[in-house]
Amino acid sequence: MGTLMSQAFVSEILGTAMLILLGAGVVANVILPGTKGFGGGWLLINFGWGLAVFAGVYTAFKSGAHLNPAVTLGLLTADQPFFSKTGPDDVVTVTLEPTVGNAFWYILAQLIGAFLGAAIAWLAYKKHFDADADAGTKLAVFSTGPAIRSYAWNLVTEIVATFVLVFVILAFGPTPSGLGPLAVAFLVVGIGASLGGPTGYAINPARDLGPRIAHAVLPIPGKGSSDWAYSWVPVVGPIIGGVLAGLAANAYLF
Amino acid sequence: MGTLMSQAFVSEILGTAMLILLGAGVVANVILPGTKGFGGGWLLINFGWGLAVFAGVYTAFKSGAHLNPAVTLGLLTADQPFFSKTGPDDVVTVTLEPTVGNAFWYILAQLIGAFLGAAIAWLAYKKHFDADADAGTKLAVFSTGPAIRSYAWNLVTEIVATFVLVFVILAFGPTPSGLGPLAVAFLVVGIGASLGGPTGYAINPARDLGPRIAHAVLPIPGKGSSDWAYSWVPVVGPIIGGVLAGLAANAYLF
Amino acid sequence: MGTLMSQAFVSEILGTAMLILLGAGVVANVILPGTKGFGGGWLLINFGWGLAVFAGVYTAFKSGAHLNPAVTLGLLTADQPFFSKTGPDDVVTVTLEPTVGNAFWYILAQLIGAFLGAAIAWLAYKKHFDADADAGTKLAVFSTGPAIRSYAWNLVTEIVATFVLVFVILAFGPTPSGLGPLAVAFLVVGIGASLGGPTGYAINPARDLGPRIAHAVLPIPGKGSSDWAYSWVPVVGPIIGGVLAGLAANAYLF
Amino acid sequence: MGTLMSQAFVSEILGTAMLILLGAGVVANVILPGTKGFGGGWLLINFGWGLAVFAGVYTAFKSGAHLNPAVTLGLLTADQPFFSKTGPDDVVTVTLEPTVGNAFWYILAQLIGAFLGAAIAWLAYKKHFDADADAGTKLAVFSTGPAIRSYAWNLVTEIVATFVLVFVILAFGPTPSGLGPLAVAFLVVGIGASLGGPTGYAINPARDLGPRIAHAVLPIPGKGSSDWAYSWVPVVGPIIGGVLAGLAANAYLF
Repeated sequence: MGTLMSQAFVSEILGTAMLILLGAGVVANVILPGTKGFGGGWLLINFGWGLAVFAGVYTAFKSGAHLNPAVTLGLLTADQPFFSKTGPDDVVTVTLEPTVGNAFWYILAQLIGAFLGAAIAWLAYKKHFDADADAGTKLAVFSTGPAIRSYAWNLVTEIVATFVLVFVILAFGPTPSGLGPLAVAFLVVGIGASLGGPTGYAINPARDLGPRIAHAVLPIPGKGSSDWAYSWVPVVGPIIGGVLAGLAANAYLF
Repeated sequence: MGTLMSQAFVSEILGTAMLILLGAGVVANVILPGTKGFGGGWLLINFGWGLAVFAGVYTAFKSGAHLNPAVTLGLLTADQPFFSKTGPDDVVTVTLEPTVGNAFWYILAQLIGAFLGAAIAWLAYKKHFDADADAGTKLAVFSTGPAIRSYAWNLVTEIVATFVLVFVILAFGPTPSGLGPLAVAFLVVGIGASLGGPTGYAINPARDLGPRIAHAVLPIPGKGSSDWAYSWVPVVGPIIGGVLAGLAANAYLF
Repeated sequence: MGTLMSQAFVSEILGTAMLILLGAGVVANVILPGTKGFGGGWLLINFGWGLAVFAGVYTAFKSGAHLNPAVTLGLLTADQPFFSKTGPDDVVTVTLEPTVGNAFWYILAQLIGAFLGAAIAWLAYKKHFDADADAGTKLAVFSTGPAIRSYAWNLVTEIVATFVLVFVILAFGPTPSGLGPLAVAFLVVGIGASLGGPTGYAINPARDLGPRIAHAVLPIPGKGSSDWAYSWVPVVGPIIGGVLAGLAANAYLF
Repeated sequence: MGTLMSQAFVSEILGTAMLILLGAGVVANVILPGTKGFGGGWLLINFGWGLAVFAGVYTAFKSGAHLNPAVTLGLLTADQPFFSKTGPDDVVTVTLEPTVGNAFWYILAQLIGAFLGAAIAWLAYKKHFDADADAGTKLAVFSTGPAIRSYAWNLVTEIVATFVLVFVILAFGPTPSGLGPLAVAFLVVGIGASLGGPTGYAINPARDLGPRIAHAVLPIPGKGSSDWAYSWVPVVGPIIGGVLAGLAANAYLF
């Protein structure tokens, strides 16, 4: 790992940790008993996750802020650089190329970051996790679960939602704006509002798997199963959706 | 159809499909039984539709992102170019002129895209459509319907709301900002909040007719009538509103 | 009235009409029986009014988009130009000076626009106004009223809220951003959320008086009193608040 | 105190007063009996506080808008200038250096501003404070309190949430955007949504202590204890979080 990739590795850990800390946090706030945001509704969850992305993107400015294996694999498929550093006059000086090796480090960092973020969210809501609550509720702070269980159709929903995420991110390029990280934040608010209904919009394998591992290993009182039977859906679906978006971008965008 | 119009045709299909996928999606999330956003409220629907426009505009960057026959006809009335491509130094290099022929292709693409987007939204929410629900609820995911049926007054509401949409879009030009597609997204959030109460703010003939056709042809269990009796209102109203906005723009804006 | 002032006059009429159409519209949507946004909550009202300002500011680009006598009087007090037109290279070419005469035309235009906007909002929600509803509810679509009636303290609230509006608008100058009209839109969302509780945040004499006149003269079935006893509070309070903000701006900002 | 620091002193007073006026205001609107926003929910509170920051930052443009001792101490720790004034061509002309002396004045100004803002919010909601309400509710308008009292874990939550605030603010630099003060506003919306559940997100010693003093001294009918037993948590926690963020920024960001 060269210097640039090392920095990007740390950057993806920190950014994904920020993302999951705030993302798991808003779910905890809305569904754990006794919190101030209890019962705050779906739009609150959508804004919480969208602004979690917002904070995560600012944090991960040394890696291009993928924060999501589906984004990394989408860029790999579309053969777009993972990260470019620009010097004076916006001249690109160094670049992290879209290679399988670099993708491996990005995804590993994202998983580590997601685990850490979930653990910190648990600490921030420690007393509410200690309180009596349904085991399924406690899991839902960490990982997604389907509203109606149907592996095939749940997979379809995750593929569609992740396709939207990665495709529109790839389409940001040709339409310049001064929104910076707010663009992807609002995109995620929108995807949650529109496509989060059936599966809770994982749209990110690290977002689901990292916290699920955290749920499995952390000493949470009254926790139940980590629902490993479902765990492949929010991993495989987003990977398929991200790769399809990369292919579509190759055909249409570039 | 020249190369530029061909690209714009595909662009309008993809952008309108994105718009309707996310727009129908948020309605499904709020009104279909068992979804995670069930009962999420009107503001959630407004943000969902607004951010659906946001994603659609990024997607349709090769056609100026009309996504709406009322916008196309408003531009035609105001004699404004449908799409301009700029080269270095922001010099306009090629332009899609506002002709009846080009308008025809734009509107056809919008209808095709709206149909496709509705079909994909149905797939994303497949298990919730399969569940027991009121036939009117299932239709409402696809197409608008009036709160109090009165063809004349429903038409007035759609004319007023679409006038606001197209007129303000035409007024974006003289007030530069760095908002990019977020400006029209927030405009649509606002129109939904303020003028969506009586008819559900179609404000776009393609947004209503394309999904209504999808509702009629897709094998949705327990679906009822597609309410063709009302279907002309969200087509004619927005067309009148868009043309009036184009005329008003000619008189005031340019 | 010179050409520039004539254009500004029309601009203020149109912009204020847009503001009140959407502002009265969101209240109608939330409180009139049978609408799709019925019971949508305070945040929906806040976003509706904020985005009403957003659309109004884009519309009134030929007058600097005061849309509010409190803003006009604040600028007059602070001796800031009402409107500047810039040519190439951002050089100011013509200016509407802050004179009492110009202020008169601005305020007259705002009142006319507010009346028109309220009348169009009534047409857009015609069938819901025709339906059975409390007379106070019907008035509340047009004009503000206090949660707890106390002319002195209601006045204080309106003074404070309008001071915030006009002072922060005057403070926009030194902090450039790419937000354009979104800055004032979010400011109004915030004022409504934070200071709208006691009086419904008129913060604009035209916003309250114009629609109150419309309520008095329009043939609304089942309408009651236009509550003229309270009507001076949302006129006098905002005028005081706007002038105080102009004085404070002179002392601190410039 | 030199001229620049004197101006910054006034600027921090005014900006923090604006912040707390609007921040305390939204809480009053949501929890005091009889207000128009009563029961408006957590997202309304989040947006109210976020946009309170928005208005406060515009107001405090002569001091870099810290508005928060945790930010001041974070900058001191990270050895970043408190405020820079730029002349033509964005050349920095004068700077307020991060010294302990300057930090003292900043924090004093923030406390004074927070006290004043809370007092004005009380006046704006005077009749609702006069009405019958639970003493704890009246305190909650001014200062935060824990959902589940546990000094150690409440401290953890405040440390984590303030770390996020200060670290992401320090990370804004490398990612330019046209958002201006909206970036920090949305960050605060997000922190409230995600990490406000256990303690009500003070994340700012002045925001909590200044209004608590106001609560203690103002003649509020039916007020109870100012809960001084808890008062150190929202002071010490944010100070620790801010300093940790400064250290982390030294290690990672700069």
